[in-house]
Amino acid sequence: MWTKASDPRVFVARRARLAEQLKGPALLVAGQSRPRNFQHNRFPFRAESHFLYLVGRSIEGAALLVSAAGATLFAPPADPEAELWTGAMPTLDDLSRELQLEVRPITDLQGASDIAALPPQDLETALWLSERLDRDLEPGGGVELEGADATLAEAMIALRLCHDAAAIEQLREAALVTGRAHLAGMRATRPGDREAMVRAAMEAQIIAAGCSTAYGSIVTVHGEVLHNERHDGVLGASDLLLADVGAETPEGFAGDVTRVWPVSGRFSATQRAAYEVVLASQRAAIAAVAPGVRYLDVHRAAGLALVEGLIGLGILRGSAPELYARGAAALFFPHGVGHLLGIDVHDLEDLGDRAGYQPGRARPSAPGDRYLRLDRDLSPGMCVTIEPGFYQIPRILSRPSEVGELEAALDRAELARFADVRGIRIEDDVLVTATGSEVLSLAVPKSIDDVEHAMLG
Amino acid sequence: MWTKASDPRVFVARRARLAEQLKGPALLVAGQSRPRNFQHNRFPFRAESHFLYLVGRSIEGAALLVSAAGATLFAPPADPEAELWTGAMPTLDDLSRELQLEVRPITDLQGASDIAALPPQDLETALWLSERLDRDLEPGGGVELEGADATLAEAMIALRLCHDAAAIEQLREAALVTGRAHLAGMRATRPGDREAMVRAAMEAQIIAAGCSTAYGSIVTVHGEVLHNERHDGVLGASDLLLADVGAETPEGFAGDVTRVWPVSGRFSATQRAAYEVVLASQRAAIAAVAPGVRYLDVHRAAGLALVEGLIGLGILRGSAPELYARGAAALFFPHGVGHLLGIDVHDLEDLGDRAGYQPGRARPSAPGDRYLRLDRDLSPGMCVTIEPGFYQIPRILSRPSEVGELEAALDRAELARFADVRGIRIEDDVLVTATGSEVLSLAVPKSIDDVEHAMLG
Repeated sequence: MWTKASDPRVFVARRARLAEQLKGPALLVAGQSRPRNFQHNRFPFRAESHFLYLVGRSIEGAALLVSAAGATLFAPPADPEAELWTGAMPTLDDLSRELQLEVRPITDLQGASDIAALPPQDLETALWLSERLDRDLEPGGGVELEGADATLAEAMIALRLCHDAAAIEQLREAALVTGRAHLAGMRATRPGDREAMVRAAMEAQIIAAGCSTAYGSIVTVHGEVLHNERHDGVLGASDLLLADVGAETPEGFAGDVTRVWPVSGRFSATQRAAYEVVLASQRAAIAAVAPGVRYLDVHRAAGLALVEGLIGLGILRGSAPELYARGAAALFFPHGVGHLLGIDVHDLEDLGDRAGYQPGRARPSAPGDRYLRLDRDLSPGMCVTIEPGFYQIPRILSRPSEVGELEAALDRAELARFADVRGIRIEDDVLVTATGSEVLSLAVPKSIDDVEHAMLG
Repeated sequence: MWTKASDPRVFVARRARLAEQLKGPALLVAGQSRPRNFQHNRFPFRAESHFLYLVGRSIEGAALLVSAAGATLFAPPADPEAELWTGAMPTLDDLSRELQLEVRPITDLQGASDIAALPPQDLETALWLSERLDRDLEPGGGVELEGADATLAEAMIALRLCHDAAAIEQLREAALVTGRAHLAGMRATRPGDREAMVRAAMEAQIIAAGCSTAYGSIVTVHGEVLHNERHDGVLGASDLLLADVGAETPEGFAGDVTRVWPVSGRFSATQRAAYEVVLASQRAAIAAVAPGVRYLDVHRAAGLALVEGLIGLGILRGSAPELYARGAAALFFPHGVGHLLGIDVHDLEDLGDRAGYQPGRARPSAPGDRYLRLDRDLSPGMCVTIEPGFYQIPRILSRPSEVGELEAALDRAELARFADVRGIRIEDDVLVTATGSEVLSLAVPKSIDDVEHAMLG
């Protein structure tokens, strides 16, 4: 498959919706590519997400000015010298026609301190923007925004939080390509190979579709390391392999899917039992997703179901609601059940918790909840990930300070039987619909039968 | 294959050799990872090349202090909170043992303005370093270095210009993985597919070997665009596909190989003829590589052979030496014949032309020579690329201002017969030996027979 581009009218409409919500002008920058090991060897350019959402194309060094009067793109003019190396660039007139947008040379951009802006991601762009607007803009997220900047942030959140039809179409495509990657990974898994070989088979599907990886791929036999960045491990015949890999379309929309499969092609009895517990937890969480539901309650549904499952396995002893209330889920599942998904894999995270937490809500402090990136009431058009897990993390389970009084409820002998289950996470991309939810990544093999069957492929 | 790591003693020896050449202390920084679309979504970290050359490992946020008294690595201590996400980091003691180097926490680093340093690649690291050293350091290359900084730059050039045995071993591995990528690309080429699909097959080989791409892959049916970054073109049955793709080992050493193959699996008569001309030019250039030879003369050998070939094809009319002297090669081959290759794909280019041009030499201004990145007398242990090409570039060939009086020597009707040859480049990695040269990328199919045979695979 080859991913499709949205119609230019999609971006015209997004810019108009933004303009409606602004009181004054706002400038959204594309940013610039980052050097890798020297200035001429650069990482592929990927525009800042707000810009990309409104323009649909990564145009290095460009900036979009939006006001009630309309939108203007300021872009670097085609450079004849560069043409020899990188080919003919579209002229500003070409761009204007293709994007259905007024386009002027970037040198025409007149700054003013009353133009609203959001913090760019790198220092160079922040300095460039600070000069234009004649005021200090810090790079990165987590900055307290005020006045017109805060209004702009809220307007972008209002736009991006509930996806329009074109965004949903992009998310579907990202999920499709992501699914192909997982299928290829399952089929490429061979005992004795390195993790990198499976990663290669997965990322090849993403590259072949004209997409990028939406984030650093996790492909590891040490799933208990939540964001394991290494790929040099050898695939042991009795290992589970965890792959958290997602595609990003050229317009920036992300897929984010995790699957776990047995290197041998067949789950062991203990792997099978633990996998079914995580799957039941994920099903409970997905079943809870619906308009009006608080996302913290989805997180809790996953945790409670996990505790119930672990009692069923004999790893925990006691009453599920009581053990959950005492923090038992966090011993094995210390992260949040998911996050917003859109043009960023953690959508809108450049604005800190402003997007994930609606006014009046803040991050909980309990060990199992404090990494939760989202606690909004869900609305149709939101897209979230649902990704509970079960991990045997030494830093948690071997520390009395972490286990505390839950030690008495823990059957260590039973747990020891599950030594071949170091980490399981099952993650799908879920769209909130008018009546409930739709799993966008439905086609990715997930049940034990489907996974084992796919591996035969 | 899985790429091998060098013995820690290699880096001990490199640090000792550097210390010998310094009059005072020098600080080499690793730098930091760069954000992609938001702060937590970062490009894979790749340390600054001088650091990587001396330490052998990309350690984010670390810095190496080298002086006559020895070397000390200052590194961020293991972060227990991060361990949950990215796994147990080596302790500073572990690092010390593994690297055979004194290691101290980065917070212990005492700055001083008399410590020599080189310009880091990003602004954040430049600011960090400026603060430590209490003087202004600009990011990026092309900065005029003075005093101890200039001495440090010359010392690093002296170290890195002629590769030690371990570096040559790494370059061999990079060339091997690069060769596998090209073979996979040839085998994956199907008319009607997109360029990205061939790129995917090539990069999969690189990822599977535990390597990275050393630079943005060029995989294009528009080879006349020298650094074409697009991969969305459809492979036409009569097209040539140009792939300029290289692997980088985890220690940072690069492969850099270009091959051209027919999408159909069979070169047409005109493609065959033009390919043989470029191949003869490349052979002439490689034959010229030997200790004591000036690299500009290698460049000239390639250009002269190209002109001879084009006279043979009937595209040019006249005497080869005379046409070459009048700039005829640059009409079809407007870039340099190659560059230094090492831990950067354009090795040491962060120091501007200081490494590529020995004292007393500067970039020529003639159209065919001004992009030449290297003009040293060659020495054993240097590694260079040899990459002549033949391109039909409209920006050159359709402009009287570019063609000038050479128009009279150009047979436009003959040239028009070569419409199915838009761009050919043939590039290998060549090590200067004591007696001549050795092609490190020898195993990559290159002759017409070998390429056509490989595509059957």
